[in-house]
Amino acid sequence: MKNIVGIMGPGKEATPNDLRNAYVIGRYCAGNGWVVLTGGRKSGVMDEGLRGAKENGGLTVGILPNDDLSQISEHCDIPIITNARSGRNFFNVLSSNILVACGMSHGTSSEVSLALACPGKKVILVGTDDVTNTFYKKMAGEQVIITKDYKDACAALKRVMAHLKYGTEDLNE
Amino acid sequence: MKNIVGIMGPGKEATPNDLRNAYVIGRYCAGNGWVVLTGGRKSGVMDEGLRGAKENGGLTVGILPNDDLSQISEHCDIPIITNARSGRNFFNVLSSNILVACGMSHGTSSEVSLALACPGKKVILVGTDDVTNTFYKKMAGEQVIITKDYKDACAALKRVMAHLKYGTEDLNE
Amino acid sequence: MKNIVGIMGPGKEATPNDLRNAYVIGRYCAGNGWVVLTGGRKSGVMDEGLRGAKENGGLTVGILPNDDLSQISEHCDIPIITNARSGRNFFNVLSSNILVACGMSHGTSSEVSLALACPGKKVILVGTDDVTNTFYKKMAGEQVIITKDYKDACAALKRVMAHLKYGTEDLNE
Amino acid sequence: MKNIVGIMGPGKEATPNDLRNAYVIGRYCAGNGWVVLTGGRKSGVMDEGLRGAKENGGLTVGILPNDDLSQISEHCDIPIITNARSGRNFFNVLSSNILVACGMSHGTSSEVSLALACPGKKVILVGTDDVTNTFYKKMAGEQVIITKDYKDACAALKRVMAHLKYGTEDLNE
Repeated sequence: MKNIVGIMGPGKEATPNDLRNAYVIGRYCAGNGWVVLTGGRKSGVMDEGLRGAKENGGLTVGILPNDDLSQISEHCDIPIITNARSGRNFFNVLSSNILVACGMSHGTSSEVSLALACPGKKVILVGTDDVTNTFYKKMAGEQVIITKDYKDACAALKRVMAHLKYGTEDLNE
Repeated sequence: MKNIVGIMGPGKEATPNDLRNAYVIGRYCAGNGWVVLTGGRKSGVMDEGLRGAKENGGLTVGILPNDDLSQISEHCDIPIITNARSGRNFFNVLSSNILVACGMSHGTSSEVSLALACPGKKVILVGTDDVTNTFYKKMAGEQVIITKDYKDACAALKRVMAHLKYGTEDLNE
Repeated sequence: MKNIVGIMGPGKEATPNDLRNAYVIGRYCAGNGWVVLTGGRKSGVMDEGLRGAKENGGLTVGILPNDDLSQISEHCDIPIITNARSGRNFFNVLSSNILVACGMSHGTSSEVSLALACPGKKVILVGTDDVTNTFYKKMAGEQVIITKDYKDACAALKRVMAHLKYGTEDLNE
Repeated sequence: MKNIVGIMGPGKEATPNDLRNAYVIGRYCAGNGWVVLTGGRKSGVMDEGLRGAKENGGLTVGILPNDDLSQISEHCDIPIITNARSGRNFFNVLSSNILVACGMSHGTSSEVSLALACPGKKVILVGTDDVTNTFYKKMAGEQVIITKDYKDACAALKRVMAHLKYGTEDLNE
């Protein structure tokens, strides 16, 4: 069973910094032999995370919201088609051993929240603002790792992946 | 087609204030002829929102995460069984014309975020702290209505329900 | 908790006989105080089952595949929006205490199959051909009730609803 | 983007013939460079299809119904966790370019039906009885390919994979 890192973040509203972070972290994952999983669309962080991984010889998975093949990132090896629209955000979270959020959006926020409902699952935030960091830190303390740039984020990834713990989803909402 | 108000919030970690808010707002919805929809479990805000509505002659819907009938709130008229675990949070959001969040939790946070991804859909927050209010206000400006108590929340509900606009989910995550 | 009867069948490919059966059975359910649940669209058996129930004073639920409000049956009191496309077929099945299939189609067939995977859940077939009847009878013996017309189907509904047993989904696929 | 073959069939109720077919067809897919996708559990056809592929150097994907890691097949490279129970059957179908059903069960039947609702998607049946073959042949004519053994099924796979057409899900249920 391969280790899977989920790289989440905004689509077309991603900043250049978000895109850069996603690309570099994708590369880094591939270099470590970890599969990169994103929302699979040809847009923003989803696309750049997959591109980074592919350009470094990695294996990539995209969990797609619909069956419009023209929207799939060309850097996606294995498209999982769900036709569940944003309902697929939950599958992104469950299928990733750890989540890296490169920037923030409505969709990304739903993914971070759902990840924090899985006991012990870690979420690395990079390129997020103080308001976001404070909100999630307050919500889930040590499950949340705030990093200042992609170097910091990669170092955090390395540490966590060395001691992966798996937990099942907790429904005490 | 009936109007549906979603009342969301923590399960067993709900505070007495969250429970009180959910109960009163549930009653208020029923008094206005609005269906109350929650996550349907016999726990926390889900249960109290439904109870408030039923005790005031309302109609109630619960969208359940699993098929364990013993976990369904006894105040739920129409249980929708999904077996989608927290994936049902998305259906809660889509099926509600407006969301009222009574307190905050991982699950509730995912619901608020998903609602804010539906252009124009309003979310009323009540009993949430400053950190939460600031986070969501920054994320989605006028879609978020921060209220200080249940009276304030009911007044906001009344205003919004008088001018319901429907929007489809936007996938520009 | 109300009793819920799911009326399933073809959309635009429904025959006049399928539509007539759905309408009469919907009426019959309403007369008995049972909620009628269908796939909720303004088409075929979904629409006619809801119409029959509404015209007899019943309460109706539609579990919709998308958030296009223009496709919702006007006879639907409570639209549950899932954005899960045909993934919502599974929720139709789980949320219904019993299924009545008025005719057959790809979608209907998936619903009947999923229902038969819930131990003890009954499926009434009406207006289906010998090939269909033989297939499902062989698959699930006494869970399948083959009826020759709507009178026969209503009589079968009455018998089963008097002795409802609930079962959880079985994953021994 | 890799080509993906879905191998579906019964879990613990699979016959020795179903298991043999799944294993050989899994091997054959791997030999052709196609990813093998199944329901991912350590049981029946799901497990054997993945095992066949792995023992021939292939890449394997399992779309799991829950987050119980102890139930995942040890031959699964990439587990996609959905917590959607049998709702994941739909994702199996959508994510596979073609489906091979090795034997029949309630779950398998729902998958075949959902696949036939995708215009042009082919389903190969192997080891199924006359009643099943007649039912699906009547439902969807040329989308259904009935084969008499695994050799025949592999030959059919080869032919179809050489001329893959992709279609989107059709909701004219």
